[in-house]
Amino acid sequence: MPEYQAPVRDMQFVLHEVFEAGAVWASMPGTQEVTTELADAILDEAAKITVNLIAPLSRSGDEEGVSWNDGEVTTPAGYKEAFATFAESAWIGLGGNPEYGGQGMPKMLTVLFEEMLQSANNAFCLYASLTSGAALAIDAHAIEELKQSYLPKMYSGEWTGAMCLTEAHSGTDLGIIRTKAVGNEDGSYSISGTKIFITAGEHDLSDNIIHLVLAKLPDAPTGPKGISLFLVPKFSVEADGSLGARNGVQCGSIEHKMGIHASSTCVMNFENATGYLVGEINRGLNGMFTMMNYERLSVGIQGLGCSETSYQGARQYARERLQSRAPTGPLNADKEADPIIAQPDVRRMLLTQKAFTEAGRAFGAYVGMQLDYAKFGDDEQKRHGADMVALLTPIAKAFMTDKGLDSCVLGQQVFGGHGYIREWGMEQLVRDVRISQIYEGTNGIQALDLMGRKVVANQGKFVTLFLQELGDFIDEQKQQPGMEEFTSALENSSDLLKETTQWVVNSASENPNEIGAASVDYLHLFGYTAYCYMWARMAVPALQKQSEDAFYQSKLLTGRFFNEKLLPQQHALVASIRAGSEPLMTMDEALF
Amino acid sequence: MPEYQAPVRDMQFVLHEVFEAGAVWASMPGTQEVTTELADAILDEAAKITVNLIAPLSRSGDEEGVSWNDGEVTTPAGYKEAFATFAESAWIGLGGNPEYGGQGMPKMLTVLFEEMLQSANNAFCLYASLTSGAALAIDAHAIEELKQSYLPKMYSGEWTGAMCLTEAHSGTDLGIIRTKAVGNEDGSYSISGTKIFITAGEHDLSDNIIHLVLAKLPDAPTGPKGISLFLVPKFSVEADGSLGARNGVQCGSIEHKMGIHASSTCVMNFENATGYLVGEINRGLNGMFTMMNYERLSVGIQGLGCSETSYQGARQYARERLQSRAPTGPLNADKEADPIIAQPDVRRMLLTQKAFTEAGRAFGAYVGMQLDYAKFGDDEQKRHGADMVALLTPIAKAFMTDKGLDSCVLGQQVFGGHGYIREWGMEQLVRDVRISQIYEGTNGIQALDLMGRKVVANQGKFVTLFLQELGDFIDEQKQQPGMEEFTSALENSSDLLKETTQWVVNSASENPNEIGAASVDYLHLFGYTAYCYMWARMAVPALQKQSEDAFYQSKLLTGRFFNEKLLPQQHALVASIRAGSEPLMTMDEALF
Repeated sequence: MPEYQAPVRDMQFVLHEVFEAGAVWASMPGTQEVTTELADAILDEAAKITVNLIAPLSRSGDEEGVSWNDGEVTTPAGYKEAFATFAESAWIGLGGNPEYGGQGMPKMLTVLFEEMLQSANNAFCLYASLTSGAALAIDAHAIEELKQSYLPKMYSGEWTGAMCLTEAHSGTDLGIIRTKAVGNEDGSYSISGTKIFITAGEHDLSDNIIHLVLAKLPDAPTGPKGISLFLVPKFSVEADGSLGARNGVQCGSIEHKMGIHASSTCVMNFENATGYLVGEINRGLNGMFTMMNYERLSVGIQGLGCSETSYQGARQYARERLQSRAPTGPLNADKEADPIIAQPDVRRMLLTQKAFTEAGRAFGAYVGMQLDYAKFGDDEQKRHGADMVALLTPIAKAFMTDKGLDSCVLGQQVFGGHGYIREWGMEQLVRDVRISQIYEGTNGIQALDLMGRKVVANQGKFVTLFLQELGDFIDEQKQQPGMEEFTSALENSSDLLKETTQWVVNSASENPNEIGAASVDYLHLFGYTAYCYMWARMAVPALQKQSEDAFYQSKLLTGRFFNEKLLPQQHALVASIRAGSEPLMTMDEALF
Repeated sequence: MPEYQAPVRDMQFVLHEVFEAGAVWASMPGTQEVTTELADAILDEAAKITVNLIAPLSRSGDEEGVSWNDGEVTTPAGYKEAFATFAESAWIGLGGNPEYGGQGMPKMLTVLFEEMLQSANNAFCLYASLTSGAALAIDAHAIEELKQSYLPKMYSGEWTGAMCLTEAHSGTDLGIIRTKAVGNEDGSYSISGTKIFITAGEHDLSDNIIHLVLAKLPDAPTGPKGISLFLVPKFSVEADGSLGARNGVQCGSIEHKMGIHASSTCVMNFENATGYLVGEINRGLNGMFTMMNYERLSVGIQGLGCSETSYQGARQYARERLQSRAPTGPLNADKEADPIIAQPDVRRMLLTQKAFTEAGRAFGAYVGMQLDYAKFGDDEQKRHGADMVALLTPIAKAFMTDKGLDSCVLGQQVFGGHGYIREWGMEQLVRDVRISQIYEGTNGIQALDLMGRKVVANQGKFVTLFLQELGDFIDEQKQQPGMEEFTSALENSSDLLKETTQWVVNSASENPNEIGAASVDYLHLFGYTAYCYMWARMAVPALQKQSEDAFYQSKLLTGRFFNEKLLPQQHALVASIRAGSEPLMTMDEALF
């Protein structure tokens, strides 16, 4: 594996210089205690534990993988000890509710910690992030008693979480799940059914595993409006908090996968398992979506984290590998070849990784900031933040992971033949990041969510709000010295998104196939505009300080590269969208 | 693994209906005996052996992999027996020289056989294709005695071949290899050095392994003009053809790789190994390029073969998997969900696979036809064919494999979570096809070869020849009923390529960095025009027969999809090319 170094300086740039997080936090009662000093201290500690403790287990965990024996799942050597150390340091509850032992840190900060964790080790990260996500859903929807019983132990990592949605016949289409819940006399429920693809469903890292399970009551309506959410612990929890009897939930087997080998992906069998209702009856998808939106941003961050690690590896290799001469003549006259970073095409690959990774980091923090406004802001901020979160979450999940795969493939390519060999770790990043485009709703499903629910359903209202922000930014910045190249690129990009949104909304009103025909291209179109905005935002402080430090010069050149070399992709996307659904739908199924 | 079925009907369409191969073969003395009936019989037999014998070993071979023990390499269960059966049926010499026992079949036909072999099992295919490639170099450059001793046994698969180029410090840059050759008194040479990444360098499938090794004589000039090529057998060959003593070549270890697990990738140690000069002293790269051009097309076909298998799997899954409802309302009112092939976005993924795969198949046969003209044609055909082969080989290698990865990723995506699980085989195709973008010269190197040697060095002369053919085709076809949509798309695409070629040639004359800055985008631009041409060529017979058979309707709709949904990518590529080298080269190395 490339030796990962946490990009703390880049993270501080995004937090403090681009988004002025200190001022944001000071403005809201729930975050007033978070200072820039505290944030920096957290980033430094996060860097230490992810780099020193967790990253070194990534390659060995990939080789060893998890193993299953009669219902028990064993994680690779070193995971149990590392998870215990990690959990003790309170990282799992970093963003958790302080009333139950969480640290209450804003999402804008925790996304940066999550990036480090993903960069260090995808598989390890999953055990933590599913726990945080499950805790979030419990905090938002469960009754007080359940919160008190479960949240402190989950924030401390003594117990971990899992989300049990998918069944063999039902992945995308949760409305047709078959897992049943029957009410017991004591108010609990008996849950029976089989779930597949359950990440962290069984393992040896924690004393208890808290499953959030979707199931149907006997008299529930058909479809998605008949689904309820239940908390099902692996071991029952006694009134004094101690663990009681084993519940009726067993891991039937684990999957053998392309990557994330150290993460257990389980078939979970529920047989009259005791469960507790979370939220209202038949409103389970609502509760699960609280968790899923959290996980979706987290999965987007997985794409970013892998991309960063791959970039670090490729950059180092490109500086050290001597092969051929620079096109303009030898740089290293005393050696037999020049470093390959002298080659324009190697620079193209590295700059593509760098441009997408750094824009992705800013975008993750930006979406995190919207989540914070939605949670901690005043009424107007809450409303606006929630709209932005709804709009941007599918983009964060899908665009960051699609670009994550592209980036990891490029980083592997920089290594030539060595990129295909396991010991270098560059191919593992490709295998690991690939799942991020699939789980938590495939990227195609994210695009349908964006296009259908977040754009067409409200006639582009959320998009207009977002574009209004971009327009205000352009008006404010375009006269500033040096900003014109960034604001004019953003203006063009923003106009393209605006016109295309209008076109899609109109065409979808005539033909429902137009939504799915445009959705993936549209999500990418939006992603490019969002990243163009991020580069313009980054250009503001970078222009002001470019003479102080070459770090800012690097930002400006990377932003320029993005606008000139990558952003033109939008023209191809628009042309493809405007070709409409007809080229997709005319062919009879038999002719495929 | 998806159950592979050889697409014989599609192959016959390309061969007989699109390119009228029978007439081509009848026109040249060296291929006059090849009739369409013979070609069909060969395709049928090839389909049987690849589907029944070789494809079933792909998944098990991936799981078991090759193993190394004290210099011996063991292939997975079943490979030895299958290879023996395969070799006995004379497939390895299908295109070989009849004077030494080859079948003398034209490349236009053998590429289709190679596609089946690659679709069935990449790793297995490599043992055969390296043997055919090594035989080709021996046939073209070695002295008569070596040809008589080695070619018959290689065509029969009793002995296999390997190409030994790369050293740890020298992959792309062969000019700096360190392997030494010292002349012996009997005219042979003693070869010493270490080669890495040697595919099929050691294994248990054949009685002898014939290495073609690049090495330097003590007094050789530095750089690529000081490299000679040697034939180094694993076991010496006695005058009577029997095997003698073990030569000084040993497999030091094998690599653990992302994919092609059943293919051995060896570190080969040569210690005073006896070798025989192939071709002239210091002209070894010339001889090796004969083999490499053959292998490069073959690697392009690997991209195609994986794409076809992935498409077949994804198509079947999309027809069978019931999930959600069609956007326009239920198709399957009696079931709880519709097949996902009803979803526009799933169709987008499938049609993208189909459009690239079928264009790639036609393009592979088209490049094969140019190789046949270069080998069997009259003087004018030989010259023109050789120019086209030089121009199109890097595109066939890089574009077909880049689109091969894209296609395999899409096919995996159609499967959702199941695509990530090993047992379905869709993820193996992604891992296997990935090497095709790396070996035999990375795709970045292919693009530099195209841009530098094949375009800029001759001021676009080869491109002009190619575009002339397209122009003649357009003039001839544009008035034909139904052809206008295909010829006008081709005309636009062709104009774009022409203008961009001129731009690149001019800008490269001022700044050598412009070559590498444009190269990968330019290769893709060219690939899209070439595929647009293939779709227009396929449209000719399809339009004539569309009322006969829905098969032709499928071709027309897929071609239309390509032109409307995929071809617009060229606009993004042109914009990126025209942004030039400045955004790549300005940044100081330290700022990455």
